[in-house]
Amino acid sequence: MTRAAVLSAGSWGTTFAKVLADAGSDVTLHARRPELARAITADRVNADYLPGITLPDRLRATDDPAEALDGADVVVLSIPSQSLRENLSAWAPLIPPGATLLSLMKGIELGSTRRMSEVICEVTGASADRVAVLSGPNLAREIAEEQPAATVIACSDTDRAEALQAACHTRYFRPYTNPDVVGCELGGAVKNVIALAAGVAEGLGFGDNTRASLITRGLAETMRLGLALGADPLTFSGLAGLGDLVATCSSPLSRNRTFGEHLGQGMSLEETIAATRQTAEGVKSCRSVLDLARAHGVDVPITEAVVRVCHEGESPAQMVREIMSREAKSE
Amino acid sequence: MTRAAVLSAGSWGTTFAKVLADAGSDVTLHARRPELARAITADRVNADYLPGITLPDRLRATDDPAEALDGADVVVLSIPSQSLRENLSAWAPLIPPGATLLSLMKGIELGSTRRMSEVICEVTGASADRVAVLSGPNLAREIAEEQPAATVIACSDTDRAEALQAACHTRYFRPYTNPDVVGCELGGAVKNVIALAAGVAEGLGFGDNTRASLITRGLAETMRLGLALGADPLTFSGLAGLGDLVATCSSPLSRNRTFGEHLGQGMSLEETIAATRQTAEGVKSCRSVLDLARAHGVDVPITEAVVRVCHEGESPAQMVREIMSREAKSE
Repeated sequence: MTRAAVLSAGSWGTTFAKVLADAGSDVTLHARRPELARAITADRVNADYLPGITLPDRLRATDDPAEALDGADVVVLSIPSQSLRENLSAWAPLIPPGATLLSLMKGIELGSTRRMSEVICEVTGASADRVAVLSGPNLAREIAEEQPAATVIACSDTDRAEALQAACHTRYFRPYTNPDVVGCELGGAVKNVIALAAGVAEGLGFGDNTRASLITRGLAETMRLGLALGADPLTFSGLAGLGDLVATCSSPLSRNRTFGEHLGQGMSLEETIAATRQTAEGVKSCRSVLDLARAHGVDVPITEAVVRVCHEGESPAQMVREIMSREAKSE
Repeated sequence: MTRAAVLSAGSWGTTFAKVLADAGSDVTLHARRPELARAITADRVNADYLPGITLPDRLRATDDPAEALDGADVVVLSIPSQSLRENLSAWAPLIPPGATLLSLMKGIELGSTRRMSEVICEVTGASADRVAVLSGPNLAREIAEEQPAATVIACSDTDRAEALQAACHTRYFRPYTNPDVVGCELGGAVKNVIALAAGVAEGLGFGDNTRASLITRGLAETMRLGLALGADPLTFSGLAGLGDLVATCSSPLSRNRTFGEHLGQGMSLEETIAATRQTAEGVKSCRSVLDLARAHGVDVPITEAVVRVCHEGESPAQMVREIMSREAKSE
């Protein structure tokens, strides 16, 4: 039986811990705050991040990372991208040698422009074949409610990918394997930025034609960047590319889309952060994605526009106008 | 100045006639019923199919196809796919020699499995380079409201494609050209079928993860069929493929999605036709798309499932279960 540690207990981490437990794995969920860990274990509910969902009996929670990581075959990492390096540095000595490290995170580190799997390798010293990525159209709330969903597990080591697949395959959650780690990670990181743009357009009152155009061009810019970084172009047509992008750009459950919607409705960045009580991943990642694209000479006009709106004071209306009216004679 | 005839005055035909007029073209819209033609000309509104939208002064309407077609450089065809052959047979002698024929239609003819542009060539005797196709994320109502939208004009004759581009380019409507007629037509025809499936899933209460998975696999099956028919695979990643598919699967304005939603909620085919007062294009096209796929040995599981639900009495719940649980180890 797989013994999994999930760090930490946000909505997606908690949901995926439930999936692992439902698939028969032995799971310990790490929550930073002792009272949250106690409440999860006692009440079988994570009232802070996944209210209303009953968690399986075999899922335990702890605030002690050493206890969570003790004996783990699989270490699942689900924390905000920009704090991965710092947190993982503290946890690294506790990770059992040989354990598979699975990233649920979707972002690019500011400054270093490293993908999450690269940060994991750097900080833990693990070889790349020990690191896997899970990505797909996976809105946490819907999966927590056991609606049918599919996902992609990417790992250069096929045996590890298949072991992970078995460890989280349930009646309602179907994982596919893919060797393309770079493509899956990029799809996940850039989609948060595109979803922010889609939210801005929605906040301004634009409808499904505009959103569909943004999704189409957003996928094209993700694919251009992916090709430059050595990803398999087919990954972007699949669940971890198109699938994740469509789900995130369409759903009222998406934090990045919702964040953009507030901006489009006229709130400032500060007001939006206050209203949503958090900074959406794409607000930070847009800068690191743009840096990465520039370093590889790739044109990413939607990402550029999101950076201008989030960090350079451009008006949302101007942004959508520019994106929709770019010069191009043939497609 | 381009002189365009638009046949006929449904919601998309009327909207595109408005776009042409707003772009400076001289447009005559053909309405079958004399009272509708008179009302459009007198009131500047098509109250039956596009209520609330004021039409431009330079747009005229007539119930006489000869008057509409007289002197036209561009003949725009926008009628239900399965009645194109019969209607066009009557109009063909009236079409000026050398006129460009532009199809706004999205379907495959039952029995013959011909694309709309093929039917146009057969019935009118026009060479393929005189026939163009317009397709993209173009929900009529949003364009009629002048929300920004982009589209693709496909024609094997670049000069005609560029003339059409100029004839319908407005502040809010941006056409791109593409030589791939087959790909654009297939994208348009198959998306109606996939949107029906997406509607069924929505009617059953499934959320954005399921819809995103259906869109992803729906695009994959469209692309497989397109490759077998000689289309350019890149077309399917563009506005006439992915863009149109996403818009149609997401919008409450989509007739095919709405039709599927009723089926998913438990209505019979007959009840749904009564409730929506029409048969959605995809209900008929699913059979011709399946015939076309079988003739080329292409696997189209979502289309097959839609045929089973619409025409063979399979339950919607069974259909979604089958689509979401197809066996596949790697993506």
